[in-house]
Amino acid sequence: MATSSIEESSKTKTPIEKRDDLLAKRFVGLEKNIWIEFSALAVEHKAVNVGQGFIDYEPPQYLINFYKEALNDNNILLHQYTRGFGHRRLVEAISNVYSSYFDRKIDPLNQILVTGGAYPSLFNSFHGFLNPGDEAILIEPFFDCYEPMVRSAGGIPRCIALKPKPESTKGDISSSADWILDKNELESMFNSRTRLIIVNTPNNPIGKVFTREELEHIAILCQKHDVICISDEVYEWITYDENKKHIRMATLPNMWERTLTIGSAGKTFSSTGLKLGWTIGPEHLLRSCQIVHQDCVYTCPTLSQEVVARCFEYELKRLNSPECYFNSISSEFLGKRDKLVEVLKECGMKPVVPDGGYFVLADFSQIAGDKFQSDIHDMKDFKFVRYLTKEKQLATIPATGFYTSEHRHLADNYIRFCFAKKDETLDKAIEILRKLKKN
Amino acid sequence: MATSSIEESSKTKTPIEKRDDLLAKRFVGLEKNIWIEFSALAVEHKAVNVGQGFIDYEPPQYLINFYKEALNDNNILLHQYTRGFGHRRLVEAISNVYSSYFDRKIDPLNQILVTGGAYPSLFNSFHGFLNPGDEAILIEPFFDCYEPMVRSAGGIPRCIALKPKPESTKGDISSSADWILDKNELESMFNSRTRLIIVNTPNNPIGKVFTREELEHIAILCQKHDVICISDEVYEWITYDENKKHIRMATLPNMWERTLTIGSAGKTFSSTGLKLGWTIGPEHLLRSCQIVHQDCVYTCPTLSQEVVARCFEYELKRLNSPECYFNSISSEFLGKRDKLVEVLKECGMKPVVPDGGYFVLADFSQIAGDKFQSDIHDMKDFKFVRYLTKEKQLATIPATGFYTSEHRHLADNYIRFCFAKKDETLDKAIEILRKLKKN
Repeated sequence: MATSSIEESSKTKTPIEKRDDLLAKRFVGLEKNIWIEFSALAVEHKAVNVGQGFIDYEPPQYLINFYKEALNDNNILLHQYTRGFGHRRLVEAISNVYSSYFDRKIDPLNQILVTGGAYPSLFNSFHGFLNPGDEAILIEPFFDCYEPMVRSAGGIPRCIALKPKPESTKGDISSSADWILDKNELESMFNSRTRLIIVNTPNNPIGKVFTREELEHIAILCQKHDVICISDEVYEWITYDENKKHIRMATLPNMWERTLTIGSAGKTFSSTGLKLGWTIGPEHLLRSCQIVHQDCVYTCPTLSQEVVARCFEYELKRLNSPECYFNSISSEFLGKRDKLVEVLKECGMKPVVPDGGYFVLADFSQIAGDKFQSDIHDMKDFKFVRYLTKEKQLATIPATGFYTSEHRHLADNYIRFCFAKKDETLDKAIEILRKLKKN
Repeated sequence: MATSSIEESSKTKTPIEKRDDLLAKRFVGLEKNIWIEFSALAVEHKAVNVGQGFIDYEPPQYLINFYKEALNDNNILLHQYTRGFGHRRLVEAISNVYSSYFDRKIDPLNQILVTGGAYPSLFNSFHGFLNPGDEAILIEPFFDCYEPMVRSAGGIPRCIALKPKPESTKGDISSSADWILDKNELESMFNSRTRLIIVNTPNNPIGKVFTREELEHIAILCQKHDVICISDEVYEWITYDENKKHIRMATLPNMWERTLTIGSAGKTFSSTGLKLGWTIGPEHLLRSCQIVHQDCVYTCPTLSQEVVARCFEYELKRLNSPECYFNSISSEFLGKRDKLVEVLKECGMKPVVPDGGYFVLADFSQIAGDKFQSDIHDMKDFKFVRYLTKEKQLATIPATGFYTSEHRHLADNYIRFCFAKKDETLDKAIEILRKLKKN
């Protein structure tokens, strides 16, 4: 190769490996990701992992069996591309299951988009609707990816925090239901630039299950301001109180036509490794999600879609029985929740008892004392989680990771525990927690 | 719900289902997708599918076996989230296999990103580097997603077409090697706004395997203008001429540091349903892809990554033997290529014999006569493909789908056949083709 002319013309240039302008500008400032940092840290320190939201025991046995069955079918089509917007058998199964929960016949081909998980479903929803300068209302604390997804689409996050009722924080225990939105503050977030709001119920990380009244207030504001609602309902099956059941935003009056509901096979079948999710909504909204999907992935894996279809078909037959996994999963978790909550209380970390999901926030300020303080570089809870992971081999997740910098100060006394773990893991975690108290 | 105030304020508004401004502006104009249209059409008309690029027979038996083995391992970790940038065992296997082909030790943790297929690898590459107004050089014909991906990132496609040498089109057969870039025209595409160029070798749909000299010319221009090269090498293992072997752009002098190489498990192991791919490149480039990846999907399925890791480990042991699938796959396809080429020639469709990949372009103008003409609504080849699918139950893909509107006229006499099909499918297609001639 004749490189002399290249060398000459490159002389004044910065070598490519030293350039600091490589990353596309819309991602600048979005490089950090708590999951990357804290998952790696947990592995590095061989910590007992009660941080990340995955179950560390077997998924339902039928899921494994359906994999084996599908492989034994010798159906070559299961190893090649399937329909781009969702494997036919899967969208039909999703339609069959969810039509009853949505009180309407969901069109499998036009009202369901299968994605590579709730995470890409969120990405498609934000990127499908947000233009630069459009506002998206986020309710804090939120699943941390919401903010970078809004920003990378050019949107502006408008954040409102759930705040605990003052009297609720006085005891050694409180409830996720005590965390509420200020109605006037919420109304003030909506304006003519508001494109969408995202509601996560049951909420991660607090475990709050929004009440009908709370959802109705949001719904009215959406209609008044012609705003789209993204409803992240991945913990839909996991609630602990008969009187605080999960309510689907799309079933509220006049909300179907402006709501996209996001679900997760990983959370539904306790197998996060599946990385399959879906978005359900009216054609005029789903179309935007389909277009983003076809631009960035086009189609999802075939075999796992076939397996999840069979799982749904299996559950469809026993939907109203207590054995149905969608009904039994909560009782499976209830004991774990109560066990962890008890120990947190004992050791002086004030837990916020969740009505749904599989996380507990706990206020560690009493046991940490003055040792950890937020500063301009780092938040108190980040420091405490690093300390617990490295020094005590207990991996949790800092709560401020679920907040924007604006509201971070509201939560730097909290860390998040995941209790969807086998007893052995929970017991190990409890042992470490008990020792912590003694120190 | 108190809806009266809503109705009042909405009175003047267009109902959400009738609004035409829902889709985010950067996707407007990118709604069409030939795969969605022609895959659906093929299914609807029960056509013999020699269109879409997937194999319609069994993938290697070991792939199925590794699935079963992994399921029987009862390793619960295989059902939960794995490392975000790639399952540890898979990135190590990819590193072990590719280090020898790249003549350098590839760092599994920092120089490999596992994605949900080559398609998202492409998306991450375009979206990771392009700012609005940046130019991306595309070589036509190209895999159709390149253009919308560049546009949705705000980039400007600068397109240059491979053109057949005039003398090559005179006979009843030609070679993919006859399609070349004009050197001066290529140079004129590069300027200070050029951010990247994408090279696809072996090329889809022509099957051209770029020569070392051709790649070197591109490489020199990339270095001169400080441009990043995205090298789409998903058909890397499929070449038909000992003297025209696949050459990796990243192995050319000074090109590693400015090249991202994209590969596909689906194409490598003849199982497109896997939807797993990877990007290999230096840290300073891969970082941008990782950030897009963590914004839109975060992590890929665990079980299939484990299976592909085992497939690579299996092949690694016999990399230099003729039995290695990477070596045997081409001979498997060679007979199919020659069989299809022969029949196309016979029936008056002038085939462009590919040196790589599993597609043949064929010039149908002689047999179609004046019946199909391009007009402002539709191209001739689109009309002909629809006719073949609907009337003759033979599904192919129109060549102009791989061109921008600017250069579409260069290819409206061509359609694309995929010959990676079982003999039964090919024989059915051949039967239809032979009858076509008689009409």
